Amino acid sequence: MTGKTFAEKQLSGKSGRDVHAGDYVEAEIDVAMAHDITGPLAFQTFDEVTGSDGALFAPDRTVFTIDHHAPADGVQAANNHNALREFAAEHGAHQYDVGDGICHQVLVEEGHVGPGDLVVGADSHSTTYGGLGAFGTGVGSTDLGTAMATGDLWFRVPETRRFEVEGDLPEAVYAKDLVLKFIGDVGFAGCTYMAAEYAGSTVAALPLHERFVLANMAIEMGGKAGIVEPDERTARYLEAQTGRAPSTDVDDPALHADPDAEYVDVHTYRAEEIAPQVSTPSNPENAVDVGKVEGTEIDQLFVGTCTNGRFEDMQVVADVLEGEEIAPNVRMVVVPASGAVYQQMLETGVLTTFVDAGAVVQSAGCGPCAGYHQGVLGDSDVCLATANRNFPGREGSMKSSVYLASPATVGASALYGEITDPRRVDTSRYDDVALAKGARS
Amino acid sequence: MTGKTFAEKQLSGKSGRDVHAGDYVEAEIDVAMAHDITGPLAFQTFDEVTGSDGALFAPDRTVFTIDHHAPADGVQAANNHNALREFAAEHGAHQYDVGDGICHQVLVEEGHVGPGDLVVGADSHSTTYGGLGAFGTGVGSTDLGTAMATGDLWFRVPETRRFEVEGDLPEAVYAKDLVLKFIGDVGFAGCTYMAAEYAGSTVAALPLHERFVLANMAIEMGGKAGIVEPDERTARYLEAQTGRAPSTDVDDPALHADPDAEYVDVHTYRAEEIAPQVSTPSNPENAVDVGKVEGTEIDQLFVGTCTNGRFEDMQVVADVLEGEEIAPNVRMVVVPASGAVYQQMLETGVLTTFVDAGAVVQSAGCGPCAGYHQGVLGDSDVCLATANRNFPGREGSMKSSVYLASPATVGASALYGEITDPRRVDTSRYDDVALAKGARS
Repeated sequence: MTGKTFAEKQLSGKSGRDVHAGDYVEAEIDVAMAHDITGPLAFQTFDEVTGSDGALFAPDRTVFTIDHHAPADGVQAANNHNALREFAAEHGAHQYDVGDGICHQVLVEEGHVGPGDLVVGADSHSTTYGGLGAFGTGVGSTDLGTAMATGDLWFRVPETRRFEVEGDLPEAVYAKDLVLKFIGDVGFAGCTYMAAEYAGSTVAALPLHERFVLANMAIEMGGKAGIVEPDERTARYLEAQTGRAPSTDVDDPALHADPDAEYVDVHTYRAEEIAPQVSTPSNPENAVDVGKVEGTEIDQLFVGTCTNGRFEDMQVVADVLEGEEIAPNVRMVVVPASGAVYQQMLETGVLTTFVDAGAVVQSAGCGPCAGYHQGVLGDSDVCLATANRNFPGREGSMKSSVYLASPATVGASALYGEITDPRRVDTSRYDDVALAKGARS
Repeated sequence: MTGKTFAEKQLSGKSGRDVHAGDYVEAEIDVAMAHDITGPLAFQTFDEVTGSDGALFAPDRTVFTIDHHAPADGVQAANNHNALREFAAEHGAHQYDVGDGICHQVLVEEGHVGPGDLVVGADSHSTTYGGLGAFGTGVGSTDLGTAMATGDLWFRVPETRRFEVEGDLPEAVYAKDLVLKFIGDVGFAGCTYMAAEYAGSTVAALPLHERFVLANMAIEMGGKAGIVEPDERTARYLEAQTGRAPSTDVDDPALHADPDAEYVDVHTYRAEEIAPQVSTPSNPENAVDVGKVEGTEIDQLFVGTCTNGRFEDMQVVADVLEGEEIAPNVRMVVVPASGAVYQQMLETGVLTTFVDAGAVVQSAGCGPCAGYHQGVLGDSDVCLATANRNFPGREGSMKSSVYLASPATVGASALYGEITDPRRVDTSRYDDVALAKGARS
C-alpha cells in the first residue's frame, strides 16, 4: 500500500477508516458555514431534516456571515439577512453581521478553523481554509443544511494534484501570480474534484495571508480542496490572530502527506522563472505574463475579495499609491475582506492613503466580486481586479471585461491608468512592498 | 402694489419683468444639474431639442453627479454612469464621479451656486440651494434637458408661506427639528407649489449647514423652493468653501423680501418651545415630540443624505458615540454626503469614532435613502434615519418602517438601541454637540 496524500489522511481520520482516492466516506464535520445567500436555503433543508424544533449538530461550530449583499442592496437581501439573524439567535450559532466581513476571512480571523479541521461552507471559496492546513470545501445549501443537522456528510476521497515551487519569488511576484500560473497550466477544470497540494520551499516560505490565496483559488481549477500543510508559521499566525496556540500539533503526521503518496501528477516550478501574471477575460485559466497585456486600457480597479482583500494586500497597493493619485481615466473601488482589515487600514493610515489617492472605500464584504453591488460593471467597462473569477458577467454586464491580477499589479496599473507591470514602479516603493510581503508571517 | 417676496423678486429679476405670485414667466437659468438617474433621460430630451451636435447653454454652469447608485449597484446603473461621463466629456460640463458625493452637497461645496442664482436640478431636493439664498427647484428630466439646451424655463411665480422662528434653540434641538415641526403643522402638501421662506432671529442665527436642512425639506411639504435669505454668514461660508467672496452682494435688496410682501400666511414659533421631533411612519408630516415615541424598538440607524449627511451632522453623532458602542440590537449605516465630508471625517477622527462604535461607513452618495442599496430595509425592519422621507417603501420593503429625526436623536438612539430623547444623553457630551452646532458658521 502506498502512502497517503493530505486529503486521504484527512478523510481517513474524519471517517475512522483507512481510505484512498476514489473511496466513499461518511466524514465528521468540524465546522459548517453559510452566508446571506446560501444560509436561508440551508435553513429550509435543516428544518426538513430535523423538524421545526431541530438542533444544530454543534452550535459553537456553526457560523453564519452577512457578506455577499452587505449592506443590504435590496429587499430580498435584507429579508435574507434577517432570516439569518433569527436562525442564528434561535439556534445559538455564531453570526457575523454587515461590515464584519467575508465568511472565509472572518472564520480564520476569529479562530473558528484550525489545522486538520474538516470545514464545509456553502460557498465555493471554502477551499480557503486549506491555507491553514484544514480540509475546506464548498457544498450546496442542501448539503450544508443536512450537515448542520447531522454533523457529517459523504465525500468521495479526491485524487490529488501537487504543485511544487522551489526558490525565491522574484520582486513583485506573489502567491496570486503563482496560482494564476498553476490555473493557466492545468486549465480551469484541471483539478476537477481533486485536491491541490501546494508545496516546495517557496510555498513553505509564504506567510499565511499568501497561503490563503493559493488555497482559495484551488476552486478556479475545479479543486475540491487546496492544501498548504501546516507548520510553525501556521501555529504562530493562529496564535497571533486568536491569542491561543492551535489545539492541533502542526507537526502531527496526520496533517502531512506521506513522501510516497500517490498523485495524479506533480507540477514543478522554479520561483525565479515566474513573472507577474494576469488572467485575461473571461476565464482564470487565461493567465499570461503581465508583459503580454501591458498597456491594456481599463476603467475600474477593484481591490478586495476573499482572495486578495486582506490587510497585507491593501498595504501593497497603498505602498504603491502613497503620495500619488490614481490616474484620472480610472476609478478604484476598495472593499476590505473584514471589519478587522478595515480597522487596521484605518489605524495604519492605509485607508487615508487610498482616499487621498482618489479611491472609494466601502465597508467590509464581498463587494462587486459577484456583480451584486458596490461597483458593478457596465457594458463597456474593463476592470482589473484582485478577485478570483472573470467569467462573462461575473462583475456585471455580460459585455464587460475583467482581468485578474495581484494587488501589486493592480496598484501599479492604478498609477498608470492601464495594465502595468508592477516591476515598472519605482524601486524605492518596492522596499515597502517587499516588507509588506513578510508582514505578520 | 404690495412689496415682493423673495420668490417674486427672484423670478422678476430672472425674467426681466415685474411679476407677482400667479404670473407665468420665462426665466433665465443660472445652473442646471442632473444625476445618474435623471441625467441620461435629460440627455435624450437635450438631443431632441438641439439635434445630435447640440451645445449646452453654459457648459461651465451645467453639472452632473454620480450619487444615487454610487458605486454602481447594477448593470443599468453602471451604464447610466458611463452615459453621464461620456455626455459630460463631450459637452464640456462639470462631472463628479463615484464617491464625490450627493449633487446638492457637491454643488454647494464646489461653489457652483451662489446667492440669487436660479438653479434647476433634476432631483426633488434641489430646494436645498435656498439655504444660500438661491432659488433652487426640482424639475423633471424633460424640463432639465430643455433648460440645458436653451438656458431658460417657464415658471408659475409661486405664492409664499413664511415660517418665522424667534429666540434661542434649546439644547439638542436643531434645524431638522424645526422643519419637521413646520411640516407637521402645514402637512406634507401644505406648501404645494409655494415657496417657503424661513426667517426670524433663530433662523438668522443658524449656521449654513443647518439652513440647508430647512431649504432641503421644503419639498416635503410640497414646496417649489425653500428660502433662507443670504447674509454675512452666507458670504463667510461661501468664502470658506470656495476661497473667494460670492460675486453677489448678500445685502442686495433683490435678495431680500420686502417687509410688505404678501404671504399666504405667516407661521410664528418660539424656539424655546420646540422639542426634538420625530416623524413617524410613513409620512414626514407625522411629526411628534420625541417623548411620544421614546422606547420604540429599531433595527437600523441611518446617518446621511442631502438633508443631514454633512460633516457637522456626523460630528454630532460622533460626539454622542465617542468611546461608546452602538447598542447590540441595532446596526448603523453611515454615508457621508460628499467626498469632502468623508475626508474631513477621516482627518478629524470622526470616522474612527463611528467604526469603533460599530457603525459601517460607506463612500459618499445617497446611500439607502431611496432604497437602492447600502442598507435597504427588509419587511420587518424599523429604521431611524437622518433622512428626509419615510413614505411606504422609501428605504426598502413596503412593510418596513422609517422614522425621521435629527442626527442628535439618531446618535442618542444608537446608544440606547431604541428611539431616545437626545436630552437623555450625558450633558458633558452635549458641550461638544453644542459646539458642533456653531462649527464653520
